[in-house]
Amino acid sequence: MQEADIGLIGLGVMGENLALNIADNGYTVAVYNRTAGKVDAFLDNAGPLRGNVMGSGELAAFVGMLKRPRSVIIMVQAGDPVDAVIAQLRPLLAEGDVIIDAGNANYHDTVRRFSELDGTGIGFLGIGVSGGEEGARHGPSIMVGGSEAQWKNAEAVLTAIAAKFNGESCCAYLGTGGAGHFVKTIHNGIEYADMQMIAEIYGVMRDGLGMTPDACAKVFADWNKGPLDSYLIEITGHVLAAMDEKTGQPLVDVIVDAAGQKGTGRWSAIEALNLGVSATTIEGAVAARSISAIKAERERGEALYGAGMKGKATISLEALEKALLAGKIAAYAQGFAVMAKASEEHGWNLPLDTIAKIWRAGCIIRSRFLDQISKAFEAGSSDNLLTQPSFVSMMTESNGALRAVVATCAVNELPAPCLSSALAYFDAYRQGRGTTNLTQGQRDFFGAHGFRRIGEEGDFHHSWPSLVEGAQQP
Amino acid sequence: MQEADIGLIGLGVMGENLALNIADNGYTVAVYNRTAGKVDAFLDNAGPLRGNVMGSGELAAFVGMLKRPRSVIIMVQAGDPVDAVIAQLRPLLAEGDVIIDAGNANYHDTVRRFSELDGTGIGFLGIGVSGGEEGARHGPSIMVGGSEAQWKNAEAVLTAIAAKFNGESCCAYLGTGGAGHFVKTIHNGIEYADMQMIAEIYGVMRDGLGMTPDACAKVFADWNKGPLDSYLIEITGHVLAAMDEKTGQPLVDVIVDAAGQKGTGRWSAIEALNLGVSATTIEGAVAARSISAIKAERERGEALYGAGMKGKATISLEALEKALLAGKIAAYAQGFAVMAKASEEHGWNLPLDTIAKIWRAGCIIRSRFLDQISKAFEAGSSDNLLTQPSFVSMMTESNGALRAVVATCAVNELPAPCLSSALAYFDAYRQGRGTTNLTQGQRDFFGAHGFRRIGEEGDFHHSWPSLVEGAQQP
Repeated sequence: MQEADIGLIGLGVMGENLALNIADNGYTVAVYNRTAGKVDAFLDNAGPLRGNVMGSGELAAFVGMLKRPRSVIIMVQAGDPVDAVIAQLRPLLAEGDVIIDAGNANYHDTVRRFSELDGTGIGFLGIGVSGGEEGARHGPSIMVGGSEAQWKNAEAVLTAIAAKFNGESCCAYLGTGGAGHFVKTIHNGIEYADMQMIAEIYGVMRDGLGMTPDACAKVFADWNKGPLDSYLIEITGHVLAAMDEKTGQPLVDVIVDAAGQKGTGRWSAIEALNLGVSATTIEGAVAARSISAIKAERERGEALYGAGMKGKATISLEALEKALLAGKIAAYAQGFAVMAKASEEHGWNLPLDTIAKIWRAGCIIRSRFLDQISKAFEAGSSDNLLTQPSFVSMMTESNGALRAVVATCAVNELPAPCLSSALAYFDAYRQGRGTTNLTQGQRDFFGAHGFRRIGEEGDFHHSWPSLVEGAQQP
Repeated sequence: MQEADIGLIGLGVMGENLALNIADNGYTVAVYNRTAGKVDAFLDNAGPLRGNVMGSGELAAFVGMLKRPRSVIIMVQAGDPVDAVIAQLRPLLAEGDVIIDAGNANYHDTVRRFSELDGTGIGFLGIGVSGGEEGARHGPSIMVGGSEAQWKNAEAVLTAIAAKFNGESCCAYLGTGGAGHFVKTIHNGIEYADMQMIAEIYGVMRDGLGMTPDACAKVFADWNKGPLDSYLIEITGHVLAAMDEKTGQPLVDVIVDAAGQKGTGRWSAIEALNLGVSATTIEGAVAARSISAIKAERERGEALYGAGMKGKATISLEALEKALLAGKIAAYAQGFAVMAKASEEHGWNLPLDTIAKIWRAGCIIRSRFLDQISKAFEAGSSDNLLTQPSFVSMMTESNGALRAVVATCAVNELPAPCLSSALAYFDAYRQGRGTTNLTQGQRDFFGAHGFRRIGEEGDFHHSWPSLVEGAQQP
């Protein structure tokens, strides 16, 4: 009897699509779902791929279908359901097998699950899968972390089903423990920043320059042929060009401006804070979605302060394009700096060049730009992207436009939280002598926290005057 | 034999000063310290206050000195030491007594400790104490949270030792569980933002206008007589005016520009993220300290990109003053919005007016401004500060200057992360129609997340083109 190369638990849209993708690539996949009827339906609807799929509504029977050592992908709702499946699965597995969580786990959970299985002989991999439903079906980007020894069980299948960039698979093992899900979290944080900066540029076009959605769409389609060439710019063009069948208006004009978030952008910002790395573009993007959600408050704000200037901006489309590029460099510099620091803290030895490579196709932030990033980090460097030679020249060439756009937004009452944070980050990063010498003086004044002196070792204090009237030490 | 009104454990500088403050206010305080010698030294050095202090190096003897129902303040290092002291103390206490943690606790720990003691008859209060060493000695701001029933044990003493603003004590009970330490955390986040905006304005003066520290000091001293009148502006003047005895240079010029942080700013930003409230000024301030700490990288950045423009800015001191006021309004609006949301989530019913009142004196951010805030919230409103009538007029009058300063910083290569985040927050907050309609379109395109339509109920999807070559559903 035929044995399956890999198993998959959880036939939601993402699970189904991953299973079909596996079958499509010539591997045999066994599926299991808690609701047995979904297994039958899946097998019945597999069409020409029927020969490569099998399955059961019985967990033990499903496990029995798998080639040893076994690989089992779990694609269920993140959180407790993952722990429940692992608990059911463990007694059915044997030494050398591996459990692969492909859901959107918080990497802290992945670290815990990895530790719980460590020493049992059963491996655990936490893999970040990016690309949405379509990516899962036709080739996602796959970020792998966890048990390196058992990674070989699943390597061939996952490498095959991932997206390809110039023939190279967008799947790679990145490090132990929670490395894969951590990298996926930062991917999503960068995605938030990327999307928010596009929204801000759209805002300049719409409210500053008075452009129609159709005119904006043409500009984004045009930009997609230049240095901004990317999936997000491409779909921005499509979204802005889409017409609403019901009203005949541009679709974007009938969509409510209140954005949802599923938490990974927020996780990303929190991890950066915990690591002490500046990720203000990600924070700005998360905050922008939060403000967007309080629409009634914003409407009241507009009533109190007036609608702001409209159509008064004077800025060229070329400047907007360059500003977006400069903002993007700063945002990616922050995201990669967070990963470099996390790698150091957790001993993951994250390969930044490989991460950029596997993001070049399959995932939401895929772009030509990421190919340039992968080349910048190729020599194994983990230095800030802003210091990599190719980016120094891109940033030198484009930061002036970012300045012009941020200034234009400030004066024209156009919110630009992410673009202005990107500029402030760049200007702080390239300022050898900053202004926190004052901060340190203040902290010594009110809290005796001490300060360092230029060119000397050790902590120093100044003898400050007391501001309390009649104050005296006992 | 005389009994003590209150006990205090932990004779570090803050503990000693709090004890002396209590004695100074006519109450009798008993002290205990793990190293018994510190107790003797404290009693020996109490001078004229000797009659109001007692103590023991034996915990049981110390507890025996206290009037019942007992109040015991713990002022030891935050974290495990607090739990250790509580564990030792519990068997010695009786129903109706209260343990008061006055350290810089993470409010999550306070919530846990409160729950652990809940139902035992022993109360728990977590109190935030702001004002540094001098505040502890002469009158801090005290933010109380926890067991309301046992609050009365300590109320008279804590109310007496707190700072006074026009005769009103800067001590108040704010809510159950971790409310006190939560409010203290947000206080510190606001403090970070306040200090960072001052540092940015100092940067404009120093690098944009080429002013000397002494010239800057005079401006801040002058501003302290106007709407910016506050402790932080006052000490900024002193810090900038201070001369270094060793070199004869302005002190601020010999202090290294790398700021430390003790974590409360970071906690504040993380809580805002978890609550989904925009706190970009706090995030920007935390990030600015992080960037300041990587000085070697910044020096390399400067070498790669050049030192930036110096002395080329054209902006008036009046605009800088107004911009700082506008930035401050936005930062406090964010901080109070975080508290309003936390209050809702945790059922604390935080009195925003009272919080502003007890911050008017004693604490680091004390200011005339906070008196205005307390009046704005007086009617029990928890609406965003940006919508409170007195602040609408202040912001209307000052936001133009903030625009001019942010634009000046952008063009003149002066980092202004916090001021630009303040402006972006204001502009997003007063924009009835934002730009995340585009974001929602993108999210529906790549992830089928759906969107809402203007004027309709429910979630909608658009039928988007597939961008995958040869893609087809099975």
